[in-house]
Amino acid sequence: MKKEVSLKKAKWLVEPGCVVLVTAGNRQRANVMTFSWQTPVNSNDPCQILLAVNTIRYTYKLIKENHELVINVPGLDLLQATHRVGTVSGRDVDKFSETGLSPVPAKIVAPPLIDECAGHLECKVVETFHQGNHDLLICEVLRAVADDDRFDGKWILEKFQTLHYLGGRTYGILERRIDA
Amino acid sequence: MKKEVSLKKAKWLVEPGCVVLVTAGNRQRANVMTFSWQTPVNSNDPCQILLAVNTIRYTYKLIKENHELVINVPGLDLLQATHRVGTVSGRDVDKFSETGLSPVPAKIVAPPLIDECAGHLECKVVETFHQGNHDLLICEVLRAVADDDRFDGKWILEKFQTLHYLGGRTYGILERRIDA
Repeated sequence: MKKEVSLKKAKWLVEPGCVVLVTAGNRQRANVMTFSWQTPVNSNDPCQILLAVNTIRYTYKLIKENHELVINVPGLDLLQATHRVGTVSGRDVDKFSETGLSPVPAKIVAPPLIDECAGHLECKVVETFHQGNHDLLICEVLRAVADDDRFDGKWILEKFQTLHYLGGRTYGILERRIDA
Repeated sequence: MKKEVSLKKAKWLVEPGCVVLVTAGNRQRANVMTFSWQTPVNSNDPCQILLAVNTIRYTYKLIKENHELVINVPGLDLLQATHRVGTVSGRDVDKFSETGLSPVPAKIVAPPLIDECAGHLECKVVETFHQGNHDLLICEVLRAVADDDRFDGKWILEKFQTLHYLGGRTYGILERRIDA
Protein backbone atom coordinates (compact mmCIF):
# COMPACT_ATOMS: atom_id res chain seq x y z
CA MET A 1 0.00 0.00 0.00
CA LYS A 2 1.31 3.47 -0.85
CA LYS A 3 2.22 5.52 2.20
CA GLU A 4 3.84 8.85 2.92
CA VAL A 5 7.65 8.72 3.18
CA SER A 6 9.48 11.15 5.46
CA LEU A 7 11.30 13.79 3.40
CA LYS A 8 14.45 12.76 5.29
CA LYS A 9 14.24 9.38 3.56
CA ALA A 10 12.95 10.58 0.19
CA LYS A 11 16.35 10.47 -1.55
CA TRP A 12 16.59 6.69 -1.01
CA LEU A 13 13.94 6.21 -3.68
CA VAL A 14 16.45 7.35 -6.34
CA GLU A 15 19.95 7.29 -4.78
CA PRO A 16 20.66 3.75 -6.08
CA GLY A 17 20.95 5.40 -9.50
CA CYS A 18 17.87 3.85 -11.06
CA VAL A 19 16.03 4.94 -14.16
CA VAL A 20 13.00 7.10 -13.33
CA LEU A 21 9.87 8.20 -15.16
CA VAL A 22 9.33 11.95 -14.91
CA THR A 23 5.85 13.36 -15.41
CA ALA A 24 5.26 17.00 -16.33
CA GLY A 25 2.30 19.16 -17.34
CA ASN A 26 -1.11 19.07 -15.68
CA ARG A 27 -4.37 17.11 -15.64
CA GLN A 28 -5.41 18.35 -19.06
CA ARG A 29 -2.08 17.82 -20.80
CA ALA A 30 0.63 15.65 -19.29
CA ASN A 31 3.68 13.84 -20.59
CA VAL A 32 6.10 11.26 -19.25
CA MET A 33 9.82 10.92 -20.04
CA THR A 34 12.45 8.37 -19.02
CA PHE A 35 15.48 9.76 -17.18
CA SER A 36 18.69 7.96 -16.42
CA TRP A 37 20.57 11.18 -15.62
CA GLN A 38 19.49 11.90 -12.06
CA THR A 39 21.21 12.19 -8.69
CA PRO A 40 20.42 13.54 -5.24
CA VAL A 41 22.31 16.77 -4.51
CA ASN A 42 21.03 17.44 -0.99
CA SER A 43 19.79 14.94 1.59
CA ASN A 44 17.43 16.95 3.71
CA ASP A 45 16.12 20.42 4.58
CA PRO A 46 15.30 20.28 1.72
CA CYS A 47 15.78 17.00 -0.12
CA GLN A 48 16.89 17.92 -3.65
CA ILE A 49 17.25 15.76 -6.76
CA LEU A 50 19.07 16.95 -9.88
CA LEU A 51 17.75 16.00 -13.33
CA ALA A 52 19.75 16.72 -16.48
CA VAL A 53 17.38 17.36 -19.38
CA ASN A 54 18.05 18.16 -23.00
CA THR A 55 16.37 21.49 -23.74
CA ILE A 56 14.88 20.22 -27.01
CA ARG A 57 12.62 17.76 -25.17
CA TYR A 58 8.85 18.20 -25.07
CA THR A 59 8.95 17.38 -21.35
CA TYR A 60 11.39 20.28 -20.85
CA LYS A 61 8.84 22.62 -22.43
CA LEU A 62 6.11 21.37 -20.09
CA ILE A 63 8.34 21.67 -17.02
CA LYS A 64 9.15 25.28 -17.93
CA GLU A 65 5.43 26.14 -17.92
CA ASN A 66 4.76 25.44 -14.23
CA HIS A 67 8.17 24.39 -12.78
CA GLU A 68 6.66 21.22 -11.34
CA LEU A 69 7.29 17.55 -12.00
CA VAL A 70 6.93 14.13 -10.43
CA ILE A 71 9.76 11.59 -10.28
CA ASN A 72 8.22 8.10 -10.44
CA VAL A 73 10.22 4.91 -9.83
CA PRO A 74 9.44 1.98 -12.17
CA GLY A 75 10.48 -1.60 -11.50
CA LEU A 76 11.23 -4.64 -13.62
CA ASP A 77 7.52 -5.15 -14.35
CA LEU A 78 7.57 -1.80 -16.23
CA LEU A 79 10.67 -2.54 -18.33
CA GLN A 80 8.90 -2.40 -21.70
CA ALA A 81 6.92 0.74 -20.88
CA THR A 82 10.00 2.46 -19.45
CA HIS A 83 12.02 1.76 -22.57
CA ARG A 84 9.18 2.77 -24.89
CA VAL A 85 8.66 6.06 -23.03
CA GLY A 86 12.36 6.81 -23.53
CA THR A 87 12.27 6.33 -27.29
CA VAL A 88 9.26 8.34 -28.49
CA SER A 89 8.29 12.01 -28.07
CA GLY A 90 5.15 13.26 -26.36
CA ARG A 91 4.87 15.71 -29.25
CA ASP A 92 3.95 12.75 -31.49
CA VAL A 93 2.05 10.33 -29.28
CA ASP A 94 0.14 10.18 -26.00
CA LYS A 95 2.63 8.07 -24.08
CA PHE A 96 0.11 7.16 -21.37
CA SER A 97 -2.38 5.54 -23.75
CA GLU A 98 0.50 4.11 -25.84
CA THR A 99 2.05 2.29 -22.86
CA GLY A 100 -0.92 1.73 -20.58
CA LEU A 101 0.70 3.75 -17.78
CA SER A 102 -2.03 5.31 -15.61
CA PRO A 103 -1.83 8.98 -14.60
CA VAL A 104 -3.41 9.69 -11.21
CA PRO A 105 -3.62 13.08 -9.47
CA ALA A 106 -0.73 14.19 -7.29
CA LYS A 107 -1.47 15.77 -3.93
CA ILE A 108 0.65 18.96 -4.15
CA VAL A 109 1.76 19.48 -7.75
CA ALA A 110 -0.05 19.65 -11.09
CA PRO A 111 1.66 16.78 -12.99
CA PRO A 112 0.22 13.31 -12.33
CA LEU A 113 1.77 10.34 -10.54
CA ILE A 114 2.11 7.10 -12.52
CA ASP A 115 0.00 4.63 -10.60
CA GLU A 116 2.00 1.52 -11.62
CA CYS A 117 5.26 2.90 -10.16
CA ALA A 118 6.29 1.89 -6.63
CA GLY A 119 7.38 5.33 -5.46
CA HIS A 120 6.86 9.00 -6.26
CA LEU A 121 8.55 12.32 -5.49
CA GLU A 122 6.41 15.39 -6.04
CA CYS A 123 8.85 18.19 -6.86
CA LYS A 124 9.18 21.89 -7.56
CA VAL A 125 12.10 23.10 -9.69
CA VAL A 126 13.84 25.68 -7.50
CA GLU A 127 16.96 26.37 -9.55
CA THR A 128 18.23 25.73 -13.07
CA PHE A 129 21.84 25.65 -14.22
CA HIS A 130 22.58 25.80 -17.95
CA GLN A 131 25.26 23.41 -19.12
CA GLY A 132 25.72 23.00 -22.86
CA ASN A 133 22.64 21.45 -24.47
CA HIS A 134 21.27 20.44 -21.11
CA ASP A 135 19.60 22.17 -18.23
CA LEU A 136 20.40 20.89 -14.76
CA LEU A 137 17.15 21.11 -12.83
CA ILE A 138 17.38 21.27 -9.05
CA CYS A 139 14.14 19.65 -7.89
CA GLU A 140 13.03 20.18 -4.32
CA VAL A 141 11.00 17.26 -3.03
CA LEU A 142 7.71 18.47 -1.56
CA ARG A 143 6.15 15.07 -0.94
CA ALA A 144 7.34 11.47 -1.13
CA VAL A 145 5.19 8.35 -1.33
CA ALA A 146 6.10 4.68 -1.71
CA ASP A 147 4.56 1.24 -1.49
CA ASP A 148 5.44 0.05 2.01
CA ASP A 149 5.51 -3.58 0.83
CA ARG A 150 8.45 -2.66 -1.43
CA PHE A 151 10.17 0.25 0.35
CA ASP A 152 11.00 0.36 4.06
CA GLY A 153 13.48 3.26 3.92
CA LYS A 154 15.44 1.20 1.38
CA TRP A 155 14.10 -0.65 -1.66
CA ILE A 156 13.31 -4.25 -0.70
CA LEU A 157 15.03 -5.84 -3.69
CA GLU A 158 13.54 -9.27 -2.99
CA LYS A 159 10.17 -7.71 -3.85
CA PHE A 160 11.02 -4.79 -6.13
CA GLN A 161 13.86 -4.49 -8.63
CA THR A 162 14.96 -1.11 -9.95
CA LEU A 163 16.16 -0.61 -13.55
CA HIS A 164 19.63 0.74 -14.39
CA TYR A 165 20.47 1.81 -17.92
CA LEU A 166 23.40 0.04 -19.55
CA GLY A 167 22.88 1.39 -23.10
CA GLY A 168 20.89 0.55 -26.23
CA ARG A 169 17.98 -1.71 -25.26
CA THR A 170 19.85 -3.13 -22.27
CA TYR A 171 19.09 -2.60 -18.59
CA GLY A 172 20.64 -3.93 -15.41
CA ILE A 173 18.29 -5.28 -12.76
CA LEU A 174 19.07 -4.50 -9.12
CA GLU A 175 17.85 -7.62 -7.34
CA ARG A 176 20.29 -8.53 -4.58
CA ARG A 177 21.23 -6.51 -1.53
CA ILE A 178 24.23 -7.05 0.65
CA ASP A 179 25.60 -5.39 3.78
CA ALA A 180 29.20 -4.15 3.96
CA MET B 1 43.19 -6.36 -19.67
CA LYS B 2 42.71 -2.62 -19.36
CA LYS B 3 42.23 -0.88 -22.70
CA GLU B 4 41.38 2.59 -23.91
CA VAL B 5 37.63 3.28 -24.22
CA SER B 6 36.35 5.69 -26.86
CA LEU B 7 35.20 8.95 -25.24
CA LYS B 8 31.88 8.39 -27.01
CA LYS B 9 31.36 5.34 -24.81
CA ALA B 10 32.93 6.70 -21.63
CA LYS B 11 29.64 7.59 -19.94
CA TRP B 12 28.54 3.94 -19.93
CA LEU B 13 31.05 3.26 -17.16
CA VAL B 14 28.91 5.32 -14.75
CA GLU B 15 25.46 5.81 -16.34
CA PRO B 16 24.00 2.74 -14.56
CA GLY B 17 24.14 4.91 -11.42
CA CYS B 18 26.83 2.94 -9.61
CA VAL B 19 28.91 4.04 -6.65
CA VAL B 20 32.33 5.33 -7.73
CA LEU B 21 35.66 5.96 -6.04
CA VAL B 22 37.02 9.42 -6.82
CA THR B 23 40.74 10.08 -6.48
CA ALA B 24 42.14 13.58 -6.08
CA GLY B 25 45.52 15.13 -5.34
CA ASN B 26 48.78 14.05 -6.93
CA ARG B 27 51.51 11.42 -6.60
CA GLN B 28 52.87 12.88 -3.37
CA ARG B 29 49.54 13.38 -1.66
CA ALA B 30 46.39 11.68 -2.88
CA ASN B 31 43.04 10.79 -1.40
CA VAL B 32 40.08 8.67 -2.38
CA MET B 33 36.40 9.26 -1.62
CA THR B 34 33.25 7.25 -2.28
CA PHE B 35 30.58 9.01 -4.36
CA SER B 36 27.03 7.88 -4.90
CA TRP B 37 25.89 11.26 -6.18
CA GLN B 38 27.03 11.20 -9.80
CA THR B 39 25.39 11.38 -13.22
CA PRO B 40 26.40 12.02 -16.82
CA VAL B 41 25.27 15.44 -18.03
CA ASN B 42 26.62 15.28 -21.60
CA SER B 43 27.21 12.22 -23.76
CA ASN B 44 29.93 13.32 -26.10
CA ASP B 45 31.96 16.26 -27.45
CA PRO B 46 32.79 16.35 -24.60
CA CYS B 47 31.62 13.57 -22.30
CA GLN B 48 30.80 15.20 -18.96
CA ILE B 49 30.00 13.67 -15.58
CA LEU B 50 28.55 15.67 -12.69
CA LEU B 51 29.67 14.96 -9.12
CA ALA B 52 27.94 16.55 -6.14
CA VAL B 53 30.45 17.06 -3.32
CA ASN B 54 30.03 18.51 0.14
CA THR B 55 32.41 21.46 0.40
CA ILE B 56 33.62 20.37 3.85
CA ARG B 57 35.27 17.23 2.43
CA TYR B 58 39.03 16.80 2.32
CA THR B 59 38.70 15.49 -1.24
CA TYR B 60 36.97 18.75 -2.19
CA LYS B 61 39.99 20.68 -0.93
CA LEU B 62 42.34 18.53 -3.01
CA ILE B 63 40.18 18.86 -6.14
CA LYS B 64 40.21 22.65 -5.76
CA GLU B 65 44.02 22.65 -5.85
CA ASN B 66 44.46 21.29 -9.39
CA HIS B 67 40.89 20.83 -10.71
CA GLU B 68 41.62 17.24 -11.66
CA LEU B 69 40.20 13.92 -10.50
CA VAL B 70 39.76 10.33 -11.54
CA ILE B 71 36.43 8.48 -11.37
CA ASN B 72 37.16 4.80 -10.67
CA VAL B 73 34.49 2.07 -10.84
CA PRO B 74 34.65 -0.57 -8.09
CA GLY B 75 32.83 -3.91 -8.25
CA LEU B 76 31.43 -6.36 -5.72
CA ASP B 77 34.96 -7.56 -4.85
CA LEU B 78 35.68 -4.06 -3.50
CA LEU B 79 32.53 -3.77 -1.36
CA GLN B 80 34.32 -3.53 1.98
CA ALA B 81 36.97 -1.08 0.75
CA THR B 82 34.32 1.06 -0.96
CA HIS B 83 32.24 1.30 2.19
CA ARG B 84 35.28 1.98 4.38
CA VAL B 85 36.49 4.76 2.07
CA GLY B 86 33.06 6.38 2.40
CA THR B 87 33.11 6.43 6.20
CA VAL B 88 36.51 7.90 7.14
CA SER B 89 38.25 11.15 6.21
CA GLY B 90 41.58 11.40 4.40
CA ARG B 91 42.42 14.12 6.91
CA ASP B 92 42.69 11.39 9.56
CA VAL B 93 43.97 8.30 7.74
CA ASP B 94 45.75 7.27 4.56
CA LYS B 95 42.83 5.51 2.93
CA PHE B 96 45.03 3.68 0.43
CA SER B 97 47.12 1.91 3.06
CA GLU B 98 44.05 1.47 5.26
CA THR B 99 42.08 -0.36 2.57
CA GLY B 100 44.82 -1.90 0.44
CA LEU B 101 43.65 -0.02 -2.65
CA SER B 102 46.61 0.57 -4.99
CA PRO B 103 47.22 4.01 -6.51
CA VAL B 104 48.87 3.84 -9.95
CA PRO B 105 49.80 6.82 -12.16
CA ALA B 106 47.19 8.21 -14.53
CA LYS B 107 48.21 9.09 -18.08
CA ILE B 108 46.86 12.66 -18.36
CA VAL B 109 45.95 13.94 -14.89
CA ALA B 110 47.80 14.18 -11.56
CA PRO B 111 45.54 12.07 -9.31
CA PRO B 112 46.16 8.31 -9.43
CA LEU B 113 43.97 5.53 -10.78
CA ILE B 114 42.94 2.77 -8.37
CA ASP B 115 44.40 -0.37 -9.87
CA GLU B 116 41.78 -2.77 -8.44
CA CYS B 117 38.89 -0.93 -10.13
CA ALA B 118 37.60 -2.17 -13.49
CA GLY B 119 37.28 1.22 -15.18
CA HIS B 120 38.62 4.74 -14.91
CA LEU B 121 37.70 8.21 -16.18
CA GLU B 122 40.50 10.79 -16.05
CA CYS B 123 38.76 14.14 -15.69
CA LYS B 124 39.26 17.88 -15.54
CA VAL B 125 36.73 20.01 -13.66
CA VAL B 126 35.56 22.56 -16.23
CA GLU B 127 32.71 24.22 -14.34
CA THR B 128 31.38 24.40 -10.80
CA PHE B 129 27.88 25.30 -9.70
CA HIS B 130 27.24 26.13 -6.06
CA GLN B 131 24.10 24.61 -4.58
CA GLY B 132 23.61 24.87 -0.82
CA ASN B 133 26.30 22.91 1.04
CA HIS B 134 27.38 21.14 -2.13
CA ASP B 135 29.33 22.02 -5.21
CA LEU B 136 28.21 20.46 -8.46
CA LEU B 137 31.41 19.68 -10.35
CA ILE B 138 31.15 19.32 -14.12
CA CYS B 139 33.92 16.87 -14.97
CA GLU B 140 35.07 16.62 -18.57
CA VAL B 141 36.38 13.17 -19.38
CA LEU B 142 39.83 13.39 -20.97
CA ARG B 143 40.58 9.67 -21.05
CA ALA B 144 38.61 6.49 -20.36
CA VAL B 145 40.03 3.04 -19.67
CA ALA B 146 38.33 -0.25 -18.77
CA ASP B 147 39.04 -3.94 -18.45
CA ASP B 148 37.85 -5.40 -21.75
CA ASP B 149 37.00 -8.70 -20.07
CA ARG B 150 34.40 -6.85 -18.01
CA PHE B 151 33.33 -3.91 -20.23
CA ASP B 152 32.48 -4.16 -23.92
CA GLY B 153 30.74 -0.79 -24.26
CA LYS B 154 28.40 -1.97 -21.48
CA TRP B 155 29.33 -3.59 -18.17
CA ILE B 156 29.27 -7.38 -18.59
CA LEU B 157 27.29 -8.10 -15.42
CA GLU B 158 27.95 -11.83 -15.60
CA LYS B 159 31.61 -10.96 -14.92
CA PHE B 160 31.48 -7.63 -13.10
CA GLN B 161 28.81 -6.35 -10.72
CA THR B 162 28.53 -2.65 -9.92
CA LEU B 163 27.52 -1.38 -6.46
CA HIS B 164 24.46 0.82 -5.87
CA TYR B 165 23.94 2.54 -2.56
CA LEU B 166 20.71 1.73 -0.73
CA GLY B 167 21.59 3.43 2.60
CA GLY B 168 23.39 2.65 5.85
CA ARG B 169 25.71 -0.32 5.25
CA THR B 170 23.52 -1.72 2.48
CA TYR B 171 24.31 -1.90 -1.24
CA GLY B 172 22.46 -3.32 -4.20
CA ILE B 173 24.40 -5.52 -6.59
CA LEU B 174 23.74 -5.12 -10.32
CA GLU B 175 24.21 -8.65 -11.61
CA ARG B 176 21.58 -9.39 -14.25
CA ARG B 177 21.07 -7.70 -17.58
CA ILE B 178 17.98 -7.85 -19.70
CA ASP B 179 16.96 -6.40 -23.06
CA ALA B 180 13.74 -4.44 -23.46
